[in-house]
Amino acid sequence: MPATFIGLLVALFAVFLGAFTHHVSPVFLVSNITALLIVFGGALGATMASFEMEATKGVFSAIKRTLFPKPMADGSSTLATLVEFARKARHEGLLSLESEVGGLDDAFMRRGLQLAIDGNDPDAVAQVMRTDIRAMKARHKVPADWCTSFGIFAPTFGIIGAVIGLIATLGELDEPEKLGAGIAAAFVATFLGVFLANGVMLPLANRMKRLSAQEVQGREMVLEGVMAIQGGQNPRVIEETLMSYLSPSDAALVRSSSDG
Amino acid sequence: MPATFIGLLVALFAVFLGAFTHHVSPVFLVSNITALLIVFGGALGATMASFEMEATKGVFSAIKRTLFPKPMADGSSTLATLVEFARKARHEGLLSLESEVGGLDDAFMRRGLQLAIDGNDPDAVAQVMRTDIRAMKARHKVPADWCTSFGIFAPTFGIIGAVIGLIATLGELDEPEKLGAGIAAAFVATFLGVFLANGVMLPLANRMKRLSAQEVQGREMVLEGVMAIQGGQNPRVIEETLMSYLSPSDAALVRSSSDG
Amino acid sequence: MPATFIGLLVALFAVFLGAFTHHVSPVFLVSNITALLIVFGGALGATMASFEMEATKGVFSAIKRTLFPKPMADGSSTLATLVEFARKARHEGLLSLESEVGGLDDAFMRRGLQLAIDGNDPDAVAQVMRTDIRAMKARHKVPADWCTSFGIFAPTFGIIGAVIGLIATLGELDEPEKLGAGIAAAFVATFLGVFLANGVMLPLANRMKRLSAQEVQGREMVLEGVMAIQGGQNPRVIEETLMSYLSPSDAALVRSSSDG
Amino acid sequence: MPATFIGLLVALFAVFLGAFTHHVSPVFLVSNITALLIVFGGALGATMASFEMEATKGVFSAIKRTLFPKPMADGSSTLATLVEFARKARHEGLLSLESEVGGLDDAFMRRGLQLAIDGNDPDAVAQVMRTDIRAMKARHKVPADWCTSFGIFAPTFGIIGAVIGLIATLGELDEPEKLGAGIAAAFVATFLGVFLANGVMLPLANRMKRLSAQEVQGREMVLEGVMAIQGGQNPRVIEETLMSYLSPSDAALVRSSSDG
Amino acid sequence: MPATFIGLLVALFAVFLGAFTHHVSPVFLVSNITALLIVFGGALGATMASFEMEATKGVFSAIKRTLFPKPMADGSSTLATLVEFARKARHEGLLSLESEVGGLDDAFMRRGLQLAIDGNDPDAVAQVMRTDIRAMKARHKVPADWCTSFGIFAPTFGIIGAVIGLIATLGELDEPEKLGAGIAAAFVATFLGVFLANGVMLPLANRMKRLSAQEVQGREMVLEGVMAIQGGQNPRVIEETLMSYLSPSDAALVRSSSDG
Repeated sequence: MPATFIGLLVALFAVFLGAFTHHVSPVFLVSNITALLIVFGGALGATMASFEMEATKGVFSAIKRTLFPKPMADGSSTLATLVEFARKARHEGLLSLESEVGGLDDAFMRRGLQLAIDGNDPDAVAQVMRTDIRAMKARHKVPADWCTSFGIFAPTFGIIGAVIGLIATLGELDEPEKLGAGIAAAFVATFLGVFLANGVMLPLANRMKRLSAQEVQGREMVLEGVMAIQGGQNPRVIEETLMSYLSPSDAALVRSSSDG
Repeated sequence: MPATFIGLLVALFAVFLGAFTHHVSPVFLVSNITALLIVFGGALGATMASFEMEATKGVFSAIKRTLFPKPMADGSSTLATLVEFARKARHEGLLSLESEVGGLDDAFMRRGLQLAIDGNDPDAVAQVMRTDIRAMKARHKVPADWCTSFGIFAPTFGIIGAVIGLIATLGELDEPEKLGAGIAAAFVATFLGVFLANGVMLPLANRMKRLSAQEVQGREMVLEGVMAIQGGQNPRVIEETLMSYLSPSDAALVRSSSDG
Repeated sequence: MPATFIGLLVALFAVFLGAFTHHVSPVFLVSNITALLIVFGGALGATMASFEMEATKGVFSAIKRTLFPKPMADGSSTLATLVEFARKARHEGLLSLESEVGGLDDAFMRRGLQLAIDGNDPDAVAQVMRTDIRAMKARHKVPADWCTSFGIFAPTFGIIGAVIGLIATLGELDEPEKLGAGIAAAFVATFLGVFLANGVMLPLANRMKRLSAQEVQGREMVLEGVMAIQGGQNPRVIEETLMSYLSPSDAALVRSSSDG
Repeated sequence: MPATFIGLLVALFAVFLGAFTHHVSPVFLVSNITALLIVFGGALGATMASFEMEATKGVFSAIKRTLFPKPMADGSSTLATLVEFARKARHEGLLSLESEVGGLDDAFMRRGLQLAIDGNDPDAVAQVMRTDIRAMKARHKVPADWCTSFGIFAPTFGIIGAVIGLIATLGELDEPEKLGAGIAAAFVATFLGVFLANGVMLPLANRMKRLSAQEVQGREMVLEGVMAIQGGQNPRVIEETLMSYLSPSDAALVRSSSDG
Repeated sequence: MPATFIGLLVALFAVFLGAFTHHVSPVFLVSNITALLIVFGGALGATMASFEMEATKGVFSAIKRTLFPKPMADGSSTLATLVEFARKARHEGLLSLESEVGGLDDAFMRRGLQLAIDGNDPDAVAQVMRTDIRAMKARHKVPADWCTSFGIFAPTFGIIGAVIGLIATLGELDEPEKLGAGIAAAFVATFLGVFLANGVMLPLANRMKRLSAQEVQGREMVLEGVMAIQGGQNPRVIEETLMSYLSPSDAALVRSSSDG
């Protein structure tokens, strides 16, 4: 299910096979040293300059996590856990959750419930959890912005490479046999700039943003659940509300099992 | 009234007839294997990589629903139902709606009224309904974003195809009879990229967003109506407020019939 | 004072006269059947597909209303009416306005004041009026978005037409006397796409948005006035506040006449 | 210190001197009647059509005010006045300001203080002042939007002029000595469109927005000051708060003089 | 760790080395007087005209600060200081901080705590601090906007330079040996415009925005801390909340040391 890895392979394969059907060697497209230096080096330099060094260092592991994302917490089981806790807290009091909380895998839920059990003010609990979500969003945003930035710079350095290739060609008008090479370098730079952006970096940035949004949504469900548990709300209403965070198919499953 | 289906046919027909009047065969425009691989394969791969696999799987049925949308709930009759319920609730109490609610076709209205009848706090009812609307919006947004993404990537892979076509041409400068084919592939890739985007994917994305906005608006009218019923508001004021959700012609119809 | 009609004529005249000074016949620019089919038909189809059929049907009358807009309600006289009503309501009570309200031309002011006189809660009155303004904005937005959409699609179909024209030319390299026609069709499509967008559709969309904003502002002034009247505010303060909705010259006029 | 006037001169001089070093006469660049008609006439018409006639009439004086802006109210002396008034109001009561207010140059401060002295509700005073600021912003936005609009349309009419120039050239392929003129007209139109936008209209629009923002900020400082005076706040806290509206160097000056 | 300086060097080196591998002299790329005048002079003039003179004067020192940024306040030690102060204030009262505050390096924290110790209303303290943060953001925004503006204008003057170069070439069709120079000037202007934007100005603007955001975030942490201290909140909750402002690695360090 690593959609990003598969998608990037599909794009790469389609473009290189397409080139091949037209007698353009894929090797030729990626081995022009002038084009590689200008497009890859230029876009990398401009993107590095746009960010603090930590962002550039951290982007490679972020790309790896995007190509092969860890499975997310399952929404239905998170919901079941929260509703179960709500029932217990309503019948036996919030303190009865003390023993359950320690065993939770989800560090965010554990932290929120512990703060609630410790008797902190609901507003303070919500504030800690919300600041935590906001900080996670800000952390996720850095590599996504980095890839977007690279994807914006790459085609502009493709233009720079093309222009330099054409200038080179002008100096060799008297050696027509070299004309082709000059123009080819111009077009290879354009190709590299557009492909690095649209075939690699922008899809990665898009996916990073979606993965982040999904993780944020999962945490907002937990936040809403913890608030409702601390507020002693009716578990049935909690279930109804949190169910909206699930996909329709998951919600239908939960509904049928909780009615059954 | 499937405006999207008709509109896409009009665009397709206009472009291909236009090409035909100029002695360019429509078949020629869509049968270049190099261009198809690079533009369609590349844009599909880049879009797949931008989304989780479920989004790509679900997009085809979403496109079908957009080409042939189911008729929406009729605003005037929704309004009439809500005002009728408001009258009954004001005179006979909220519980008197119990028998009516089961027979409602509109699952969203049924759920909201049932929560109100069950005596839940108005804020809790509103929260459940609002989270529901928000979740529906998020669900609708995925295929619209998918098509937008495809529509943004397609022309860039059109450029990639054009550049590869031109590189191929450079290698055949000594075989002038092949020049035409090389340049044609370049232009066909450009054509395919721009047409797939502007003649297909972006109009689909636009329409998806509008259909979603209409469905959201319909549900907001129901939410406002349920809130007003639970709050025991004057049915006349409810009618006045909800009428603003109707088109002017529908509103005039309601007004004349309710005055008559 | 129909600025849009005059402006569009100026643009059309300037472009066609400019072409004429350069020995390019305006007739030539608008009579190429290939370019017309692809650019006009393509952009129309793509825009139709982006909207429900009602939007496309309603756009022609909206364009007519934009070319020849009806005169707006005069801000100064609306202000005078509201301040006069405020004085009367403060001295003789809100009910004293009953007789005045029936004769009002402005249906929005009439509706708001009637709701206030009927003794509805100020929040309910404001809600009805605000929903009304929001609904008017949404209604105005449809044809403006339609024209914007057409204005975005037109140049892209201009590119499609140009590409098809160039492909046609490639097939006639051996008949040089036809080369000119092929390239001309390419350029005429580009011209039509860019001109339909920037010389017609985008200015129309811009003006529609401005007319809507002005009408919304006029209604917000009425809303604020009705609220202040119902709240029994000091007429002098009402006048001061509402005056900010007028242009400086109108405000100066009101000020001098109310001080005089 | 008229930065906009100087900046526009620098851009104009750099471009025309650059052209001259390359043996292209500045006169040649601005005297092509075809290009002038299409680019200037077309962009003017499209912009006129986008706005009500008053906006077009008012733009020339707005441009003059932007080239040679009147000196703004000095932040430090506004602050000193407000703090002085705060001290007086705190010791001798708000009414003691009556005699001072009449002599104020700043009409906005005068109006706000007068409303406060007249015993109006603080919320009403704030509302009048805020509506006034909002109305000023809306007024300033019109010529800025007009220039932005012109700056967006101009390059598109540059493309239209270029296309028409190229079409003209196609008709004269048999008279090669006229080829140059046709292509020159094409390029001159492109030049004019890009230069009118980026060398004139967009910088003007940028500066208009900045001047407006500065004036808005000055008024927000006065608004905050009047509110604090009416609320009887500690003059020292008022000074601390308002100081943040000053540039760091002005703030340091105020700080040293108030500590001294 | 001056990432911006290194990044810009990488981009510059990659582009010039790439040009060199293709037999285009870096000196040639930056010594064309026509291109330099039009691109650098034009973009500088247009940007100057967009801003008040102070902004242009201040941009050079802002660029220096961006290339070699001063080390930021260390988040963990700021947190430790605030938590320490919170403990002391809770046990010995807010006034006990009087002696500590004078020695603080961080002027923003010193000012906020002093206002709190002086017994000002928490809302007033928050307002002063928030206005201060807002003013700092506005100050930082000016050079970032200046560089962005330059980066937007530069490529458009690159187009102007290219067009003028091509016009010059048209006048020398009869002297083919000068053709190369004309076209080279055209391409060099394009190169300069795109490189000045994407290889210099836009990365600088990006980094300026990030540095500002980091400084803002540091101050928001201090603001939240001072509010919590003045409100007498539990130091443990303060620590939990503020920890979200740290990077995960810093937070883990703080956590382990505060648990140990």
